[in-house]
Amino acid sequence: MTESSADAVTPAPDEETGVAASPVEPRGLSRRGLLGLAIGGGVAGLAVGAGAGLAGGVALGRERATGDARVVYDFFGEHQAGITTPVQEHLHFASFDMMPRTDRDDLISLLQDWSYAASRITQGLDVSATGAVGGDAQQPPDDTGEALGLLAAGLTITIGFGPTLFENEDGDRYGIASLRPAGLERLPAFLGDDLDPAHSQGDLCIQACADDPQVAVHAIRNLSRIAFGRAKLRWSQLGFGKTSRTTSGQATPRNLFGFKDGTANILADDAKALADHVWVPASTEPAWMAGGSYLVARKIAMLIETWDRVRLAEQDTIIGREKGSGAPLSGGDEFTAPKFGTKAIDAHSHVRLAHPEQNDGIRILRRGFNYVDGNNALGRLDAGLFFLSYQRDPAQFITLQRALSTDLMNEYIKHVGSGIWAIPGGVKPGSYVGAELFA
Amino acid sequence: MTESSADAVTPAPDEETGVAASPVEPRGLSRRGLLGLAIGGGVAGLAVGAGAGLAGGVALGRERATGDARVVYDFFGEHQAGITTPVQEHLHFASFDMMPRTDRDDLISLLQDWSYAASRITQGLDVSATGAVGGDAQQPPDDTGEALGLLAAGLTITIGFGPTLFENEDGDRYGIASLRPAGLERLPAFLGDDLDPAHSQGDLCIQACADDPQVAVHAIRNLSRIAFGRAKLRWSQLGFGKTSRTTSGQATPRNLFGFKDGTANILADDAKALADHVWVPASTEPAWMAGGSYLVARKIAMLIETWDRVRLAEQDTIIGREKGSGAPLSGGDEFTAPKFGTKAIDAHSHVRLAHPEQNDGIRILRRGFNYVDGNNALGRLDAGLFFLSYQRDPAQFITLQRALSTDLMNEYIKHVGSGIWAIPGGVKPGSYVGAELFA
Repeated sequence: MTESSADAVTPAPDEETGVAASPVEPRGLSRRGLLGLAIGGGVAGLAVGAGAGLAGGVALGRERATGDARVVYDFFGEHQAGITTPVQEHLHFASFDMMPRTDRDDLISLLQDWSYAASRITQGLDVSATGAVGGDAQQPPDDTGEALGLLAAGLTITIGFGPTLFENEDGDRYGIASLRPAGLERLPAFLGDDLDPAHSQGDLCIQACADDPQVAVHAIRNLSRIAFGRAKLRWSQLGFGKTSRTTSGQATPRNLFGFKDGTANILADDAKALADHVWVPASTEPAWMAGGSYLVARKIAMLIETWDRVRLAEQDTIIGREKGSGAPLSGGDEFTAPKFGTKAIDAHSHVRLAHPEQNDGIRILRRGFNYVDGNNALGRLDAGLFFLSYQRDPAQFITLQRALSTDLMNEYIKHVGSGIWAIPGGVKPGSYVGAELFA
Repeated sequence: MTESSADAVTPAPDEETGVAASPVEPRGLSRRGLLGLAIGGGVAGLAVGAGAGLAGGVALGRERATGDARVVYDFFGEHQAGITTPVQEHLHFASFDMMPRTDRDDLISLLQDWSYAASRITQGLDVSATGAVGGDAQQPPDDTGEALGLLAAGLTITIGFGPTLFENEDGDRYGIASLRPAGLERLPAFLGDDLDPAHSQGDLCIQACADDPQVAVHAIRNLSRIAFGRAKLRWSQLGFGKTSRTTSGQATPRNLFGFKDGTANILADDAKALADHVWVPASTEPAWMAGGSYLVARKIAMLIETWDRVRLAEQDTIIGREKGSGAPLSGGDEFTAPKFGTKAIDAHSHVRLAHPEQNDGIRILRRGFNYVDGNNALGRLDAGLFFLSYQRDPAQFITLQRALSTDLMNEYIKHVGSGIWAIPGGVKPGSYVGAELFA
């Protein structure tokens, strides 16, 4: 354990906390901290009271509609935030590789520093108490400042460990190879994969979701900066217009094929489904993954210009649902269970092949976003779905993805990026993400 | 003139309208049209009443805070929308080239079809009355559907004509070369330019701004689709977190250097400044540009990792303002006029070199957005400012940009894309954008 966060934020060190300190000596409240004071006692207590305040977290207006910039989610808790949290409107996802010749202490200090900064920015504060403008003017500021004056906007930071963190061609760099979960290995090749290595894998990942893109970008930019000398950004992806919902209060959004996506997703209030399909149980080895999950990311390019020339009836057949209502072609409304016995739903439709009923009851929690990365030389939009799913075992995703090998939709998509990460359980107050791995 | 929009929307054709019809026969209200009915009489009248309703435009909740998805802006008016309109949160900008062997009729029909679709989608409707799911199921849908269920979200569509539309290496393709405004020519090279031709210029441009990125993307995607066979997407750019404000009610946003940007911008309620600096007066040649403006786009990459290592005091010196408050270094608050006589503000600071007082009173209306396009192989974010400015004469931008040749900020930026377009005046009800050019 290195210096505690309490050292950095309060005059009196708190022996209980283990979050790494900011590298710069604190000077007082940041401007964002002061801003926070105006919002509510919780945030004020956090900024002033430090360790304990951070530990407790603050949930201002959690019941408000998505999009309210005042929404604040806990960083600490039983599980990491950003999984069952109501899906925000914007994503900045980043994959990192550890730098050569880094050691176990470097990795631990990085995770501590990330946790410390994440525990602050998720509350609408700067990355440190001195922040963007509160420090020594003869030093570079701790915080890059583009989120000054912006609120938390529902920011969540979710951190994961890739297979190569445990062991790569350089061996067991961090003394954790023996603790790698058996299922945490590079995903197998799937039919039709056209993966770009520059947009795949990574030792570490950070999923930053917020209802303001500038807040999500600020998070990844500053966490990348904090990683300097220890880890380097490998690839990153912006996304918008969530393509799944995680609470029953959210309307089902549409993907860039124009169809509702995530109708049958696992919802945050379905404790049984979460236990059965998403959270790693305490009884499973390795013990450090208790309360965690596994994240699969797939960058799925959509050939949207080709799709847009498909007859509406054929689009419906491919998906197995009505484009307008989202109802299965076997009848009913969006939330009616599809009936696969009849001819109404094609045997190779997406809804049938992906359905739990056709896959021994396997479900996953989806949390994807649409993306548009400009256009190619042919004048076609470089667009698609940045698919994110959480499951308690990577085998769930692998089984479902194999089932989709004959999906009618495959003619219109191409998987161009892929990654898998172990998402440790929630961070205990005063600790840091993944601390159990190094205990 | 081709079929009128009234043909497409109402049972009784309206001889007064000249907006091009949708290529597919209408069947009735789209789902988005029906959705609109639930919102307010204005939109309902629009969806049902057609021609006249479209022509009048609807402004629901224009006084609401930016970000309210119910906000609707007129497409028709004295000036095109999207210039003095309160800057929205998201941008999708697209540059197009006309296809080889297209003729004047193709160009006119494209502008009519774009105007027709724009007049609908800005009101929260599908691109045509049949829309995404209301047409013949044995045909591809008119609308791609990803905005089904979303509201107008303050969408504006602003259309412009590049120098090459008037004449290029193939000559005067559309019989308009003699009507090219004298100032509408490719921008001169500026010191430090590192322009990517694949991200510069274009025969036509569309600026789509909205408070929901999916609405902006839907607009560009569908307008690109409508252009099929006539014009092709050349390049496109997404942006977020506006970096300027255009109304006094908007807080000054921050760019990715963490500084407030646009403090002294021309505001929508400053009629004199707009007349003096933004709108082309009716007395100027060519006459078809009356009420129009000139748009300059510059993609400005920021070396943010380098910037982030600069001392706070030095950052302030480079900009000439305090990072926190935005106040000029000569004292006061954000809105205090800077005093250049003293040593407080460096002679090569950005604020001084760009200030009207140093440039014979020249001002421009800025409307830029931040962008992040992933990262490069070194792990640095590919990020910066997508600068957009409107002025009544391109010479205004050229003068200011030349004045910035010794800007201290130049060490941290690189201009990588550039374009200029003539923005015709507002579209008259029943007409189409740029109609005066072809009169």
